[in-house]
Amino acid sequence: MSTQAIATPKTLPARYYTDLEVFRDEMERFYCQTWICAGRAGQIPSPGHYFLREVAGESIIITRDQGGEVRAFYNVCRHRGTRMCSEPQGSFAGRIQCPYHGWTYGLDGRLIGAPHMDEAGSFCREEYSLNRVATGVWEGNIFINLAPRPEPLEKQLADLPQKFAAWRMQDLRLHKRLAYDVKANWKLIILNYNECLHCPVLHPTLNRLTNYLGADNETPQPTYVGGAMGFKGSAETMSIDGKRRRDYLPGLSEEERHKVCYYAIYPNFLLSLHPDYMMTHTLWPKTVNHTQIVCEWHFHPQEMAKPDFQANDAIDFWDLTNREDWGISELSQLGISSRAYKPGPYSTREQLLHAFDEVVLAREREAPAVLVKNVNQH
Amino acid sequence: MSTQAIATPKTLPARYYTDLEVFRDEMERFYCQTWICAGRAGQIPSPGHYFLREVAGESIIITRDQGGEVRAFYNVCRHRGTRMCSEPQGSFAGRIQCPYHGWTYGLDGRLIGAPHMDEAGSFCREEYSLNRVATGVWEGNIFINLAPRPEPLEKQLADLPQKFAAWRMQDLRLHKRLAYDVKANWKLIILNYNECLHCPVLHPTLNRLTNYLGADNETPQPTYVGGAMGFKGSAETMSIDGKRRRDYLPGLSEEERHKVCYYAIYPNFLLSLHPDYMMTHTLWPKTVNHTQIVCEWHFHPQEMAKPDFQANDAIDFWDLTNREDWGISELSQLGISSRAYKPGPYSTREQLLHAFDEVVLAREREAPAVLVKNVNQH
Amino acid sequence: MSTQAIATPKTLPARYYTDLEVFRDEMERFYCQTWICAGRAGQIPSPGHYFLREVAGESIIITRDQGGEVRAFYNVCRHRGTRMCSEPQGSFAGRIQCPYHGWTYGLDGRLIGAPHMDEAGSFCREEYSLNRVATGVWEGNIFINLAPRPEPLEKQLADLPQKFAAWRMQDLRLHKRLAYDVKANWKLIILNYNECLHCPVLHPTLNRLTNYLGADNETPQPTYVGGAMGFKGSAETMSIDGKRRRDYLPGLSEEERHKVCYYAIYPNFLLSLHPDYMMTHTLWPKTVNHTQIVCEWHFHPQEMAKPDFQANDAIDFWDLTNREDWGISELSQLGISSRAYKPGPYSTREQLLHAFDEVVLAREREAPAVLVKNVNQH
Repeated sequence: MSTQAIATPKTLPARYYTDLEVFRDEMERFYCQTWICAGRAGQIPSPGHYFLREVAGESIIITRDQGGEVRAFYNVCRHRGTRMCSEPQGSFAGRIQCPYHGWTYGLDGRLIGAPHMDEAGSFCREEYSLNRVATGVWEGNIFINLAPRPEPLEKQLADLPQKFAAWRMQDLRLHKRLAYDVKANWKLIILNYNECLHCPVLHPTLNRLTNYLGADNETPQPTYVGGAMGFKGSAETMSIDGKRRRDYLPGLSEEERHKVCYYAIYPNFLLSLHPDYMMTHTLWPKTVNHTQIVCEWHFHPQEMAKPDFQANDAIDFWDLTNREDWGISELSQLGISSRAYKPGPYSTREQLLHAFDEVVLAREREAPAVLVKNVNQH
Repeated sequence: MSTQAIATPKTLPARYYTDLEVFRDEMERFYCQTWICAGRAGQIPSPGHYFLREVAGESIIITRDQGGEVRAFYNVCRHRGTRMCSEPQGSFAGRIQCPYHGWTYGLDGRLIGAPHMDEAGSFCREEYSLNRVATGVWEGNIFINLAPRPEPLEKQLADLPQKFAAWRMQDLRLHKRLAYDVKANWKLIILNYNECLHCPVLHPTLNRLTNYLGADNETPQPTYVGGAMGFKGSAETMSIDGKRRRDYLPGLSEEERHKVCYYAIYPNFLLSLHPDYMMTHTLWPKTVNHTQIVCEWHFHPQEMAKPDFQANDAIDFWDLTNREDWGISELSQLGISSRAYKPGPYSTREQLLHAFDEVVLAREREAPAVLVKNVNQH
Repeated sequence: MSTQAIATPKTLPARYYTDLEVFRDEMERFYCQTWICAGRAGQIPSPGHYFLREVAGESIIITRDQGGEVRAFYNVCRHRGTRMCSEPQGSFAGRIQCPYHGWTYGLDGRLIGAPHMDEAGSFCREEYSLNRVATGVWEGNIFINLAPRPEPLEKQLADLPQKFAAWRMQDLRLHKRLAYDVKANWKLIILNYNECLHCPVLHPTLNRLTNYLGADNETPQPTYVGGAMGFKGSAETMSIDGKRRRDYLPGLSEEERHKVCYYAIYPNFLLSLHPDYMMTHTLWPKTVNHTQIVCEWHFHPQEMAKPDFQANDAIDFWDLTNREDWGISELSQLGISSRAYKPGPYSTREQLLHAFDEVVLAREREAPAVLVKNVNQH
């Protein structure tokens, strides 16, 4: 009869945070072959509006076509390979034109003009549409997928649409965006997001508002982890003083009004649903030890329309907390890079982190990542 | 009977513009084993005058010896390997002295002083001349060649000396030099120079002066490509307004007075001969996606001596055009680096580009490039 | 009977100064597996005082424990690998606490607090002490050694303690520290330090004070080289004008009062003992062609207490000389990186350099360097 103790789960070996080959492999597996959150549909309200995203070294144009559909394309002209679009956001006048020789594409990616190419006998315009990237929208959140034959977005989202229907995310509007450059591996950002054991030491301001031991975590899922936290004392939301300066989001139940939901939707979307606003982080890995993080605060338009609308209490609070988190993540990156680092023990308060590590390892065990070379075309 | 259509020529695969190994190979084949244009003889009018050039990571001293000959040496002392010369240009007082231990060389490279070396019994001064680099001059344009046994410069220049004799380049004098740092592969600069199909979209100012369809291209040669363009309307030269503010260069025929000759002399010399001045670009590749470009404007000394001599019309015009060209070349570099890039079709207006690509491929098929290790000595 | 001439010794091949693999190997062999000078005991006078050093990419905490012993640890928390300490120097309040989750260690490295870890059944605090680095002190100079089982410091120092006992280094106090970033391999700094043949050309100010041919060099030793130089004319110390503005160090003999001792103690400690002060350089290689150099001037406390105490004559003199030496070392690095570089001949005035080269080669021939992975623990 075995009485073997269950081994304490430990952090991953250093190479997962320091090895450029592991990073490149993860970029293929996680960032090119699954759905990643690219932004909000509200950023491109009308046909021709666009914004750019850089993922795994690729510049992607995300736009809206004449029929109102969200479309995404590699930012590469099919003539001589020129990057066509340089401004991070803007509006196309009905078509996308390359600034080098004037090749022109419709908002659906079809080539509609190629000066002097017809003089070459065998030129076939239909073969030179822009290279397409798959798109999907979940309650105003735009997702893209660089895989040639992606799985449905719905499969990756699993039960999240039902779970968060009450927050009516599609109704919310962007008020503030801050971008941070963090010298840490993208997975360290997710690990940091997934536990509050560090809150008493690192976040004295935050720790006044929630009980770091009071997280109500869900059973980890293959494509996300998360849970909810209630408030301490008289706090009603996450803000500098815990005071709530906006109406509850319409549609929330009494129970939903008294908690914050923190969900890490793999690989790049951190969704923080508050009683009165939504905060999102999207992660944009640059290299193995460098991640750009875009943080956005979204509010209900009825609140934003009020003359006394305030948001700085929420923005300043999370900006402070963000900076504390990025700073410690950078110190993690530095320490893990030491030859003295060995996997250390997770406490029972860090179970979501172990669950994420297991997802990373499981994905690595799958068939080798293939560089998405043969991009699909229109 | 075959009726197979001739395949449309296409751009080169991405690795020719993005792969560091390909770049290093090209540096050996094109920049170390052929003649490259280093500058003008007028920069070093007297013995001891010198300037430095950096090619393939090597610092080369170009100077004039006591006999008036142009000489070039690796900027490396034979004692302990010190780089002797740091100022990009200047004048040696009859000898080249290493600032570390005072080893001293004649302007012909011979070691003439080596303090305390004679105390070591077997020291033989003749074995320690500076490492020589081959030199040649064509009408005031200095060429260097790092190969130990270079082919004659005349072979590489082919029929260019006869072709451009009328412009009397050796008489012209430098008026202005501008250096540009461009984040693009050196070959993209040449491709850009070799077609005007992009002129209507990219260069509205230039396009007012010449007809982009009117290039009179020569049959491409193994060591250069080029052609001439006439002027539009009343334009008489390439300047901000097409107006010519200087006399025609003496020696030009009526026909030569009404065109600009644009020649890319591989690998680094772009020669633009105008009716009233000469513009040159020399390319100095730094790495696979980074090239320094030196642009110079040269005029006839009789014009430069006139009290009302003007040059800004030509300088400003080309500076504007240069910046447009470097910007689009950088966008080409970015787009070609995408996994979505595939070779695209050349139009009939881009035949010189295909010819250059063929030269690149042919050179690659030659015997493997050998690092020029055993430099020849005096 | 053979009459074969002794071959002139030559400088090392370029790869010893330019190859990243050679550099990494040397970092293991010289900087991780031998004793390196880390600083002065006076920097951490009381328990809890600490400073950081970075060696071979590792951040090391050097502190003093409650019993007064000098201790060194890898700056890595045993929980999740966080770098704990960011300030280059300071004072611990009796314990070292990780800023992430609050793991807390004694000044002897033992884990004394780990919040919520006891909830995990099998956690054993004794297994998670900080990773220790060996320490030693010679007359106030702190040495560290990253090897798991280092040889005794005494063996490496050999006869140096007797040789320099008269200078009573432990009594001296830091007055000034300057740090320099030098774009040169660490060994070029040592080569430069080991000869004065360059003094007439490079150091006109220094050359007025000592006779560059007058060095009295010791027979080179396996762990150090060095020698002494007397003064020229009326000079009494190395200062801007040769004037001595401080009393002789107590304990020096008449002979010791009239020379400067220059010793390079491998791999990183340059010890320059003057009649009236001590200068030290410690070398901190960053990469194959980049070394940080910390230069310190130490004086006798009785002198420093005098109201008219002056030090700028010594500081300014050596700062000038340092800058001359770093500049020429950077030019050496550049020249040696040329394909034209070949090993050049040493003169009879450069014998100590050949001796150091031989030490480098001998170390390389030893058993392969093993990355110090399994750091020893408390």
